[in-house]
Amino acid sequence: MDRLLFWLVPAASMLALCFAWYFHREMMKESEGTPQMIKIAAAVRKGAMSYLRQQYKIVGWVFLGLVILFSIMAYGFGVQNVWVPVAFLTGGFFSGLSGFLGMKTATYASARTANAARSSLNAGLRIAFRSGAVMGLVVVGLGLLDISFWYLLLNAVIPVDVMTPTHKLCIITTTMLTFGMGASTQALFARVGGGIYTKAADVGADLVGKVEAGIPEDDPRNPATIADNVGDNVGDVAGMGADLYESYCGSILATAALGAAAFIHSGDTLMQFKAVIAPMLIAAVGIILSIIGIFSVRTAEDAKMRDLLKALAFGTNLSSVLIVAATFFILWLLRLDNWMWISCSVVVGLVVGIIIGRSTEYYTSQSYRPTQRLSESGKTGPATVIISGIGLGMLSTAVPVIAVVIGIIASYLFASGFDFSNVGMGLYGIGIAAVGMLSTLGITLATDAYGPIADNAGGNAEMSGLGEAVRKRTDALDSLGNTTAATGKGFAIGSAALTGLALLASYIEEIRIGLTRIGTTEIFSGGESVSVQDATFFDFMHHYDVTLMNPKVLSGMFLGSMMAFLFCGLTMNAVGRAAAHMVDEVRRQFREIKGILTGEAEPDYERCVAISTKGAQREMVVPSLIAIAAPIATGLIFGVPGVLGLLIGGLSSGFVLAIFMANAGGAWDNAKKYVEEGNLGGKGSEVHKATVVGDTVGDPFKDTSGPSLNILIKLMSMVAIVMAGLTVAWSLF
Amino acid sequence: MDRLLFWLVPAASMLALCFAWYFHREMMKESEGTPQMIKIAAAVRKGAMSYLRQQYKIVGWVFLGLVILFSIMAYGFGVQNVWVPVAFLTGGFFSGLSGFLGMKTATYASARTANAARSSLNAGLRIAFRSGAVMGLVVVGLGLLDISFWYLLLNAVIPVDVMTPTHKLCIITTTMLTFGMGASTQALFARVGGGIYTKAADVGADLVGKVEAGIPEDDPRNPATIADNVGDNVGDVAGMGADLYESYCGSILATAALGAAAFIHSGDTLMQFKAVIAPMLIAAVGIILSIIGIFSVRTAEDAKMRDLLKALAFGTNLSSVLIVAATFFILWLLRLDNWMWISCSVVVGLVVGIIIGRSTEYYTSQSYRPTQRLSESGKTGPATVIISGIGLGMLSTAVPVIAVVIGIIASYLFASGFDFSNVGMGLYGIGIAAVGMLSTLGITLATDAYGPIADNAGGNAEMSGLGEAVRKRTDALDSLGNTTAATGKGFAIGSAALTGLALLASYIEEIRIGLTRIGTTEIFSGGESVSVQDATFFDFMHHYDVTLMNPKVLSGMFLGSMMAFLFCGLTMNAVGRAAAHMVDEVRRQFREIKGILTGEAEPDYERCVAISTKGAQREMVVPSLIAIAAPIATGLIFGVPGVLGLLIGGLSSGFVLAIFMANAGGAWDNAKKYVEEGNLGGKGSEVHKATVVGDTVGDPFKDTSGPSLNILIKLMSMVAIVMAGLTVAWSLF
Repeated sequence: MDRLLFWLVPAASMLALCFAWYFHREMMKESEGTPQMIKIAAAVRKGAMSYLRQQYKIVGWVFLGLVILFSIMAYGFGVQNVWVPVAFLTGGFFSGLSGFLGMKTATYASARTANAARSSLNAGLRIAFRSGAVMGLVVVGLGLLDISFWYLLLNAVIPVDVMTPTHKLCIITTTMLTFGMGASTQALFARVGGGIYTKAADVGADLVGKVEAGIPEDDPRNPATIADNVGDNVGDVAGMGADLYESYCGSILATAALGAAAFIHSGDTLMQFKAVIAPMLIAAVGIILSIIGIFSVRTAEDAKMRDLLKALAFGTNLSSVLIVAATFFILWLLRLDNWMWISCSVVVGLVVGIIIGRSTEYYTSQSYRPTQRLSESGKTGPATVIISGIGLGMLSTAVPVIAVVIGIIASYLFASGFDFSNVGMGLYGIGIAAVGMLSTLGITLATDAYGPIADNAGGNAEMSGLGEAVRKRTDALDSLGNTTAATGKGFAIGSAALTGLALLASYIEEIRIGLTRIGTTEIFSGGESVSVQDATFFDFMHHYDVTLMNPKVLSGMFLGSMMAFLFCGLTMNAVGRAAAHMVDEVRRQFREIKGILTGEAEPDYERCVAISTKGAQREMVVPSLIAIAAPIATGLIFGVPGVLGLLIGGLSSGFVLAIFMANAGGAWDNAKKYVEEGNLGGKGSEVHKATVVGDTVGDPFKDTSGPSLNILIKLMSMVAIVMAGLTVAWSLF
Repeated sequence: MDRLLFWLVPAASMLALCFAWYFHREMMKESEGTPQMIKIAAAVRKGAMSYLRQQYKIVGWVFLGLVILFSIMAYGFGVQNVWVPVAFLTGGFFSGLSGFLGMKTATYASARTANAARSSLNAGLRIAFRSGAVMGLVVVGLGLLDISFWYLLLNAVIPVDVMTPTHKLCIITTTMLTFGMGASTQALFARVGGGIYTKAADVGADLVGKVEAGIPEDDPRNPATIADNVGDNVGDVAGMGADLYESYCGSILATAALGAAAFIHSGDTLMQFKAVIAPMLIAAVGIILSIIGIFSVRTAEDAKMRDLLKALAFGTNLSSVLIVAATFFILWLLRLDNWMWISCSVVVGLVVGIIIGRSTEYYTSQSYRPTQRLSESGKTGPATVIISGIGLGMLSTAVPVIAVVIGIIASYLFASGFDFSNVGMGLYGIGIAAVGMLSTLGITLATDAYGPIADNAGGNAEMSGLGEAVRKRTDALDSLGNTTAATGKGFAIGSAALTGLALLASYIEEIRIGLTRIGTTEIFSGGESVSVQDATFFDFMHHYDVTLMNPKVLSGMFLGSMMAFLFCGLTMNAVGRAAAHMVDEVRRQFREIKGILTGEAEPDYERCVAISTKGAQREMVVPSLIAIAAPIATGLIFGVPGVLGLLIGGLSSGFVLAIFMANAGGAWDNAKKYVEEGNLGGKGSEVHKATVVGDTVGDPFKDTSGPSLNILIKLMSMVAIVMAGLTVAWSLF
């Protein structure tokens, strides 16, 4: 029965991929509209694909370097699992594939959405949302496919008599975990590169087009318009997809590893197996419920804006409610020990995700006081807009952090049977909460990927001159997308924090495997020697003295906090430099190509696309390599305690910093929109100019540096996990 | 011999106070200049004093509340040391007195500096610098006086037969440590209140005066000018003084407590006594060398700007070089075990301080590329100035953090005899490094307090119409002050970080005392029971499971990171709100009082002073109370592991955040100055306008939120230390 249940996982994965294919095919059947619309969509698609090709080229070199390194470690020095070089590659491949397929669909969908919006708002919503669902389902489908594949393969090839039976699953799960490193690396470049691309184009387009030349957003006379639209695709679709693919796989794999570890002493292989497949089953059920949720998103033909929002909310809420019930059912069916309370941990994760989303909405939506007050601060000029926005962003960190803290404690207590000393099950509970938060990713990512599609549809409508009425409809779709994007961002950060914690915990398991590999059989804990195989979390903590009074831990924590800021600073500066090139180019075109502003000559869009591509390509390398190198270097110098300090320092600072940046950026964006809606003097007023400055500053906050921190949090843990063998084998101190 | 050496401590303290009195008297003998100058100086003095009165009133209420709380804890429930309520008060009193005396001197000195600048640059420097020295010497003098007093008193009243002889010094030093809580609380209000005051006035004056009305800085027609000058005194003099008084005492007391703890097992009371007085002796010697350094600051009568900078640098460098030699000598004289390597830990602290200062200078001075590039980003408007400044600030955290990390490891290894497991001596070494960094505070604070005096002298010269030549001299003095202020800020942050670490370590000692007080005699470590009296750092860490896998520690760390951001956000918003009131008032005066702008009518300066005072008074309460409440609440909910997580999370995030804010703010300030010096179009150009926005945003960064974080880092540890008895007696989890 239990073995049978496992097959639900690959089955759900296949189901997701089938529906993704179905939604894609349905969308492709629609008309792409007028020749002008087709031409613009093709230009955006071409730009996006050419960027991805460049990105994959760089990522390819990095992967080659890392595979060589892992191979030397694995086959040369034996401080690495032999499967890692291969697993690493599949993780990277599937993560990249998710982003690629999602983005391809998005670029085909935007003109079709604009065309459908010519007939009705509802038709536009339907195409945009279902195309977004392609991305959501591809991510979860490929994620579970990769997990199923490796689970079955490793189960078949690893001999049964490895140490004791309970150790076999530990080895399988910790080996699988390392394929997340491939996904992380891919996601890193996608988020950083995509984030730099999109904001260089956006800031460049705004600074010269809107501010200097005084032409509206998405105006075809602006040479950077196509690049701006390409940016939405490579940043918000491909980047977001790779990011959440990684969170999704990372949380499931880390929880499986923690589940295997929790039963290492009991000798109860059956219960261990159940604990390992429980997160996969929750995810599998979540896929089915996401698909149901996606189909439930439909409105009447004459739907108003408010109805659209309700329709989207209904879909996600339905999935969330159903997953709660389904979790209790599936864990009961699995007869997992303590299934009721572990199901409660799933609920905790869902609730924390919802609280973070709501708090993001409160702090960044112009319907609430904080953002309205931010707009009002524009009365005294741009400086006070910046000061207030930074203040707002910093204050907005309180609710999400407190929610995560309560979530950590609650999910730990539930899963551990309210016993703080039951560390194994407690940490498993935190992992389960992360899985719970991400269980309905299929639909939440659909509402997220919908945003840039609607945005691009608006751009296409504007550039193709579809007229006021259509533009108004695409604006409504776009505005709806902004609301879902803000919630989605909070969600991405929250899931990164919980996934980061689960990865951190499973790092200890990698230490155990690493020690075994280099032939260490005993460690010392409390003056006594304990066998590595039977050592508990406590024993490892005591052996390595991972306490807060160890200067190596303290040093690691300072370095971790610094890494979050350094990484942000590098990406902020990268956007600044890349945007400056774009500004120069747009100014040059306005100056040299006569007749652009009168609409008589066509600007050289491709040149701007090339500049953004080149800028992102050049700028993404340094921050990415630093993120990969930091945990390796810390491990080589300070060993295990230093690495753990680095990870937790980076996680706590990075999480808070990411919320600050995302919310400050979101609030600036909407403070400007609030003024543009006619408040405080409306468009063109001094207040508007001040809020435009805020919005421009907010762009890299919310779309480059903030989201990149999600990856940093998870990637540093992943690197540490993959390098655990090297760290235990040698360190300076 | 050793007992005799101790008397060097009160003697040095008296010496400092005598020289402070001498410099003050010399300064008072000088002429205050024309009647107009005297009038302006009196107005600034009156405003500053009236603000301090208001601040002390609020602080008085908070102190009353805390004393009642401590008394109930001490005399009612017995979970608190009986001396704490009294010690708390003296710490607060002396800290406040330092700020008060320093500020009083500064307000008397500014007009005299301006008047002396009428004759020569050198005469101006001399008065300003020696008046700054009053502040430096008062802080170190009162600090050591308070320490000597309590040491002698507690030594006399605590019976010799308390447990074992080595425990007596532990009780004395941990009791003394709690008087730091009084200093912390006072410093908190001084920094937060002063920071809000000064920036509300500054931002308000700039936004309306410079930007809207187009009149220069310090113009007498601007109603907020006097308030702006008052702000320099209450923020940069009184606030900085209270802050560093706290770091100074905190580092010495924490190190003494760590020294006492390190010898608790050995039974070697003599060596324990030596370890306790060593930090005090280093500080005492530092006072003497600071006075020598102060006297060495002198230049020829026809000194140029470059000579002035050299003269100041010569004084501080001389003190630093001498302290290195003197430390080796005094610790050898004391015959402290391992004296040579412990002296090296002192050097480590000095070097880390210098590196942080240099790195601050590199990132914030317009003589170097980073700030010049920041100015260049003004070509594309204010938004890119903000983006680049934030990027610069974030990047600038790398060097200071790495320096502190190397400092932690090196000082730990030196003092522990290169043995990581010798935790007691290792942590003592970190404390010694903090003491080393602060040993020459007498002169470093003099160069710091010199800045606002020169700034005010410039304001006085401008408002009194002393003419171009004098104004040019005071500008030169002011510009020199900006350089020293930047270094001083880095220094304040660096010392806060090391002091925070030493306090964190000594928190464990308070746990020991707290457990003893509530009658707990044994704790469990590694499955065995250990007596509380003999427990090591390790034992406490294991008993409370202060490892990185404890969810309470993790939760505390998230909350600590959040506290740093929340506190910053609150103070940023406070400045925003208080500045808005000021802007309204200045606009009202321009509108209602006819003839202000033509110079025919005098603006109502007092009203602006009152508005700043009221704004600061209202706004400082919430952030201050949250900072005090957070460690208490965390302790009550999560117990010792949660508190330690909170402290280290707040310390690591807060340190990095503080550097980011201070350096971004400093760079924006100087980027504007770089343009004003005639680069990139000079004053009035578009680039200039863009950099003015950056400067305005930077004001609360560098003068309110950033410096307030120094206090937060130390205060949270202090509160935890004082509340340790309550935390061990009861917690929810």
